Amino acid sequence: MSVRRVIVCAGGGDVAPWRAAFEALVPGVEVLDTPDGRGCDFAAVWAPSRAWLAALGPVRAVFSLGAGVDHLAPVLDALRGVPVVRIEDAGMADQMVECAMLAALSTQRRAHTYAAQQRSSRWEKHPVIARAAMPVAVLGLGALGGPVARALADFGYPVQGWSRRLRAIEGVRCFAGREGLREALSTAMVAVNLLPLTDATRALFDREVLGWMPRGATFVNLARGAHVVDDDLRALLEAGHLAHAVLDVFEREPLDAQSPWWTHPAVTITPHIAARSIPEACAAQMVEKFARLDAGLAVGGLVDPDAGY
Amino acid sequence: MSVRRVIVCAGGGDVAPWRAAFEALVPGVEVLDTPDGRGCDFAAVWAPSRAWLAALGPVRAVFSLGAGVDHLAPVLDALRGVPVVRIEDAGMADQMVECAMLAALSTQRRAHTYAAQQRSSRWEKHPVIARAAMPVAVLGLGALGGPVARALADFGYPVQGWSRRLRAIEGVRCFAGREGLREALSTAMVAVNLLPLTDATRALFDREVLGWMPRGATFVNLARGAHVVDDDLRALLEAGHLAHAVLDVFEREPLDAQSPWWTHPAVTITPHIAARSIPEACAAQMVEKFARLDAGLAVGGLVDPDAGY
Repeated sequence: MSVRRVIVCAGGGDVAPWRAAFEALVPGVEVLDTPDGRGCDFAAVWAPSRAWLAALGPVRAVFSLGAGVDHLAPVLDALRGVPVVRIEDAGMADQMVECAMLAALSTQRRAHTYAAQQRSSRWEKHPVIARAAMPVAVLGLGALGGPVARALADFGYPVQGWSRRLRAIEGVRCFAGREGLREALSTAMVAVNLLPLTDATRALFDREVLGWMPRGATFVNLARGAHVVDDDLRALLEAGHLAHAVLDVFEREPLDAQSPWWTHPAVTITPHIAARSIPEACAAQMVEKFARLDAGLAVGGLVDPDAGY
Repeated sequence: MSVRRVIVCAGGGDVAPWRAAFEALVPGVEVLDTPDGRGCDFAAVWAPSRAWLAALGPVRAVFSLGAGVDHLAPVLDALRGVPVVRIEDAGMADQMVECAMLAALSTQRRAHTYAAQQRSSRWEKHPVIARAAMPVAVLGLGALGGPVARALADFGYPVQGWSRRLRAIEGVRCFAGREGLREALSTAMVAVNLLPLTDATRALFDREVLGWMPRGATFVNLARGAHVVDDDLRALLEAGHLAHAVLDVFEREPLDAQSPWWTHPAVTITPHIAARSIPEACAAQMVEKFARLDAGLAVGGLVDPDAGY
């Protein structure tokens, strides 16, 4: 196989780094950003509009520019008959490991408590929390959650993993099902959300589920804003049931400057930077997966329209 | 051997956890906290006064309650002829690893930048820094610095280690000497100080040495406040040469409520909690080392009065 023409929709972002990545990888490749009716080998897309897709000529595969494919849910019917493929890892797992470790270490070492003390010039020591006494729950055990669970366990935290289908990961206690979620959360001082956004996981973190965490726990959302019922999270933070939340994702991004999250004293906000797509690594993965599809071989990350990811 | 009587000086801290630790370890042991002239098998001390030492009856060894022995420097002459022994690790290396990892991850993932953006409700993404692009210098490669250097290297940071005597640590580029210090610091985006405080390291981090770090670097002091010339550190932070400092230790502790460090926007303060002595682990190490000394065997952590540690 050889890739001759690809088309990129960067969802309002900059196409240039994607063009550069494909051009560096495949000499002579033509990279379109506006559909002109000509067929392309594949499309690499983030949140394409229906109009953009309607103008798209024939393609033999559609790749998501990120790990999630929830941005394609509204247009999946328009793609029927074409394989839709997720990016798997491509440098994003390492970034998620860093974010999860940073959140776990900040909790274990009471970074928020000491920061608050610093703001009032107060010198006060608190008891040491050993790693073994700080269980962490990892929700979602796929291409990102799996490496995160392993890294946290390797570092010495007791890790409870939860996924739709029961997994087996060495050193991680794995759970599935709603009762399993309750069990995974019930002792977790930190819970890290890395689930895909599907009909089954939308608004999963409501008052009941977040309330399963023990008093004083920290909730870390590195997946999608729509996984969480904001008012319920806020109520649990304000009641002191949850001590802290780390929020990288929001239902509407950029987060509105008027959002009360910005100034909430128990919330750490980052602008959806937990794991950014690395164009070079993603382009290489797309070209490799396209070659496998072209040769009739199985590829990882093929989206199941029924499961929604 | 059996330990029958020990005496503890907790340097103004609480003796009770130390008493409990010895009593749990050695049934029937007598734990004094005030010298009464009776001989003890050994003394376990933190910053004892000359008066306390003058009243101390005969002991066969003196153990420091922490990893550093600089608190004993003013009274080392009064201890002449008695082996003085440092605590090695005893759960402190794990804690130092956590602090160093937290500081490195905070730098790599731009936690301070994003926290500042949150304070002004600003949503702005910055480029990803890969672990491989973030060299970390670890200064001091003993019982604490060694494990810290290895953990940072295992996680994927390029690590440059520096110590008085040249060491060899797998995966770590090791340096010694003043020119070596310059080399270790010259590319380090983060430098973690874990040196012992001796005549050779007091005020080591002055304008020249801190200035060897590249622009935008972060200095992390987990060792002793007296390692650093405060005015020089402040000048480099204010000139923007250093982006951030993490300070766990200060020349006078508790840090005075009027200290300008508390409110410095580029400084993270913690109240000397990077690695706290764990009485159970320290007591077990003292009893074990005492048995070795008693049997005429070599012990680790024996203080060399000439080197000062």
